[in-house]
Amino acid sequence: MPQTRLTISTRGQGLYEFTDEAARFVRTAGMEEGLLTAFVRHTSCSLLIQENADPDVKRDLSAYFARLAPPADDPSMDYLVHRLEGPDDMPAHIKSALTQVSLGVPVSAGRLALGTWQGLYLFEHRDRSHRREIVLHLSP
Amino acid sequence: MPQTRLTISTRGQGLYEFTDEAARFVRTAGMEEGLLTAFVRHTSCSLLIQENADPDVKRDLSAYFARLAPPADDPSMDYLVHRLEGPDDMPAHIKSALTQVSLGVPVSAGRLALGTWQGLYLFEHRDRSHRREIVLHLSP
Amino acid sequence: MPQTRLTISTRGQGLYEFTDEAARFVRTAGMEEGLLTAFVRHTSCSLLIQENADPDVKRDLSAYFARLAPPADDPSMDYLVHRLEGPDDMPAHIKSALTQVSLGVPVSAGRLALGTWQGLYLFEHRDRSHRREIVLHLSP
Repeated sequence: MPQTRLTISTRGQGLYEFTDEAARFVRTAGMEEGLLTAFVRHTSCSLLIQENADPDVKRDLSAYFARLAPPADDPSMDYLVHRLEGPDDMPAHIKSALTQVSLGVPVSAGRLALGTWQGLYLFEHRDRSHRREIVLHLSP
Repeated sequence: MPQTRLTISTRGQGLYEFTDEAARFVRTAGMEEGLLTAFVRHTSCSLLIQENADPDVKRDLSAYFARLAPPADDPSMDYLVHRLEGPDDMPAHIKSALTQVSLGVPVSAGRLALGTWQGLYLFEHRDRSHRREIVLHLSP
Repeated sequence: MPQTRLTISTRGQGLYEFTDEAARFVRTAGMEEGLLTAFVRHTSCSLLIQENADPDVKRDLSAYFARLAPPADDPSMDYLVHRLEGPDDMPAHIKSALTQVSLGVPVSAGRLALGTWQGLYLFEHRDRSHRREIVLHLSP
């Protein structure tokens, strides 16, 4: 079955869309009906399907998660032990646990069966730049 | 591979079960072993597998998420920018990010391999009525 | 398609790794490319892909979720109704809703396409011992 890998370069926390890359892979594969799986090979970023219309949704999502799992130097997080890579490290693992590392999207009539407003996003939880690898796999 | 679409009419926030509809689709397809994917084509509702025995679990889940992501007119949410569609809009996107838009359930001996107490639910996060579309896809 | 079931004996809340068992199943199946689905047949534990290097990550994740969804006898949870099985019961359902019951991991070159630091975990949310059943299914 077709499979490929995507690399996404991130520049700090936030949502990075890869809907076009996934759609192109599905189109090229030429499968009429199937299941696309997107899987991210890291534990300090994650995947999300969210609204791709108003960019404020992306901003608000980032703001919400920053409050739900604040940096380790915030007094509310003083119980965290894993601090080797900086105050954004353990909250990144937490945000990854609260969202997804793999997404399944059906393919209908040769195209991703996404709703009108749905986009595929990598959700970066670390402050510094990273190269993130996503595996795309197409099952019948 | 077999694929179908379900429409669920929601009347406000809460959990709406669709286990029977999914089980019927699997039975009709006649596949002995496989993978059912349920995918919801929206970003302000989501999918959940939860206990289908005590209805209080559904009530408590809704109550918990209402506190974890309160309406945008709650003082704790004053930083939200995306407010065009009302105070329940952005919290709906947040609750969707915190749960799932796609679920994979193995099929064993021709039936969904759900545990005794597991049911499939659409989790509606908006106040007003909606028609929600779910894609069901069966992979080998 | 190949399918098997794993039983994991848990002794209280925490993360229990099953990466080796999943990898062995994939190796034995002899499929070059495909999709492994892990599905847990319960609603008071869940599945997680997380860092398998520093054990402090597991400890911190458990500590975080214990604060995000405290036991039902905590004053902040006084609105919970479902209390039959004890104060750890309803928070277990909540933590399960906030994480995953099914995970999809692509198979590349005959092996799970996990990143270097990724491990598969059962996340037990109940205090007492349980036998938890996971279905592993391999799709093409």
